[in-house]
Amino acid sequence: MSNQPITVLGISGSLRKQSYNTAALEAAMELAPPGMTLVKADISDLPLYNQDLHTDVFPDVVERFRQQIHAADALLFVTPEYNYSIPGVLKNAIDWASRPPAQPFAGKPAAIMGVSPGAIGTARAQYHLRQVAVFLDLKLVNKPEVMIGGAKDRFDEAGKLTHEPTRDFVRQLLVSLHDWAVLLKK
Amino acid sequence: MSNQPITVLGISGSLRKQSYNTAALEAAMELAPPGMTLVKADISDLPLYNQDLHTDVFPDVVERFRQQIHAADALLFVTPEYNYSIPGVLKNAIDWASRPPAQPFAGKPAAIMGVSPGAIGTARAQYHLRQVAVFLDLKLVNKPEVMIGGAKDRFDEAGKLTHEPTRDFVRQLLVSLHDWAVLLKK
Amino acid sequence: MSNQPITVLGISGSLRKQSYNTAALEAAMELAPPGMTLVKADISDLPLYNQDLHTDVFPDVVERFRQQIHAADALLFVTPEYNYSIPGVLKNAIDWASRPPAQPFAGKPAAIMGVSPGAIGTARAQYHLRQVAVFLDLKLVNKPEVMIGGAKDRFDEAGKLTHEPTRDFVRQLLVSLHDWAVLLKK
Amino acid sequence: MSNQPITVLGISGSLRKQSYNTAALEAAMELAPPGMTLVKADISDLPLYNQDLHTDVFPDVVERFRQQIHAADALLFVTPEYNYSIPGVLKNAIDWASRPPAQPFAGKPAAIMGVSPGAIGTARAQYHLRQVAVFLDLKLVNKPEVMIGGAKDRFDEAGKLTHEPTRDFVRQLLVSLHDWAVLLKK
Repeated sequence: MSNQPITVLGISGSLRKQSYNTAALEAAMELAPPGMTLVKADISDLPLYNQDLHTDVFPDVVERFRQQIHAADALLFVTPEYNYSIPGVLKNAIDWASRPPAQPFAGKPAAIMGVSPGAIGTARAQYHLRQVAVFLDLKLVNKPEVMIGGAKDRFDEAGKLTHEPTRDFVRQLLVSLHDWAVLLKK
Repeated sequence: MSNQPITVLGISGSLRKQSYNTAALEAAMELAPPGMTLVKADISDLPLYNQDLHTDVFPDVVERFRQQIHAADALLFVTPEYNYSIPGVLKNAIDWASRPPAQPFAGKPAAIMGVSPGAIGTARAQYHLRQVAVFLDLKLVNKPEVMIGGAKDRFDEAGKLTHEPTRDFVRQLLVSLHDWAVLLKK
Repeated sequence: MSNQPITVLGISGSLRKQSYNTAALEAAMELAPPGMTLVKADISDLPLYNQDLHTDVFPDVVERFRQQIHAADALLFVTPEYNYSIPGVLKNAIDWASRPPAQPFAGKPAAIMGVSPGAIGTARAQYHLRQVAVFLDLKLVNKPEVMIGGAKDRFDEAGKLTHEPTRDFVRQLLVSLHDWAVLLKK
Repeated sequence: MSNQPITVLGISGSLRKQSYNTAALEAAMELAPPGMTLVKADISDLPLYNQDLHTDVFPDVVERFRQQIHAADALLFVTPEYNYSIPGVLKNAIDWASRPPAQPFAGKPAAIMGVSPGAIGTARAQYHLRQVAVFLDLKLVNKPEVMIGGAKDRFDEAGKLTHEPTRDFVRQLLVSLHDWAVLLKK
């Protein structure tokens, strides 16, 4: 493991203020290993994807999101599971960002994590996202698979991820992502 | 096969005006078998899903969409494939509509079709949607699986589905959905 | 719910003697609701699928398994998860049985359950099996989804399913399957 | 692209003699880029997976297959699609090989291709195999995705892959796998 500087764009799939997933992304920002700078994207203002809105140029908010992806060395998706799949909100952001020209996901190292109230902890959403990643040509970290179930017992009342084993687990994922990004940059 | 009256709500996953998928839904409206009334939902005005927007009541456009689902005897999803999965736009509509109380999809007979420019014809999106349907407790028609590839050769310049074998295929799906809905109503 | 007689063929995806999944199938045999007769298939002697072995006739053990499927009113798959998917053993049995002529799964009502040592409880295997079921035209029960995790605490040392809430859950699945089979027979 | 020596173990998911998939693997053996040695595994003699058969040691044929995987720098899966998923035969081989101790797939670079008679060309089997690969910690090549449909027109009567664009496509996959394996070895 090196300390080589890596910038990571973190994308939460939930828009609500008290979101466990956004809180987990914020925990990851604290836990980022030496050399990693992790910043949060904002996908709350994107319009619903409509090709008719993409004429010569992208809507401003889309263009800004695409630039953030282009600028990052790696990506971190933090996704809830809605109805056994990826939230529409997150998929909509991906659908916008993925449009040609210059598909910004291609070749980027990336990792996935997710939080859910129940036991399974976003497994189903994560495997759907992994299939999406094949098309996007994201280079995903395989392990650890961070699926945080039973959210209520792992976050405090202020919404902070306080469960120490879970924090360690998130840290391991970030270290894996860092090493993976450094390896692929060579 | 009976002529028993059945109302079907059709939901297209694409918002652009010239959408092949919306055109396929419009073709289905013409091709509906005796007894079936197929109407089109409008999901273009839904906000991005955010639980904070759902306090005591749903936003009006969401409430209207939910009422349409409740009122229908069956559903027809017509979905493009974006990035190897369900379009965010369609998933967002499902995410809104599925919220408690009174999840409106539960127990509804439903069918899926989709159009794509390439050869595979939305297969990957359709299987993701089938997994979503397990959670929603939609009762899906298995066959025929209507995956219309090579869209350019099957629609005319005005965007009308003109390819006769494809029209027959859509008709078969609607007949299957009709029979299935009648069977499950007993 | 009626007491109409229904015969169900149960297929366990594990061959080992002390299999939790086979034990769960045996529990289901005890718990079958009035009217349901549940018997166990034996897939341990099937050869690896090889089309060259299927000339004019199927190998005897394959033919016998196919006849059992044909004769049953409904099917119950009880599957472990190996490597995030359906066990090869179970898939091999399905591959043999599904060959033409007279694909025996077509139109059969069916249900899925599974047991695993870990927390997720065969979810990933079950969704893969659900995709297989679309091709086979099995009519699957959606709910309840019986995914029994933490096997060690639910079975006694003799391998009997003793955890009462889990037994109830299995019972509910069988009642759903019974009702579903009766409905589809009409 | 380097010419660094890489050994690849190719695994065909079909056992029949005239298999298009095995023929595609044989074509890949001819088309291997400089530095790559591609050899064929034999999974036809493996027993059906049964943990009871794995006491102190693996059955000989299993042990031999595991050693081949351990010895290879990378893997090439060539898989038909049976019933919308991975063939039982191939999954059975993976189930055996994946058992502890010393899971031999972990960290191996790998690629997937497949041949089918119909249009979709094994897409569904390949995505299931990709999910399996997450558990195994295989490092899969994303692109190109080699899904060879319409097999009859691409192979000659002797079963040789003769369709030149398809041969080029296979060659590209092997070059990608070679580069990927070299990169990950660093």
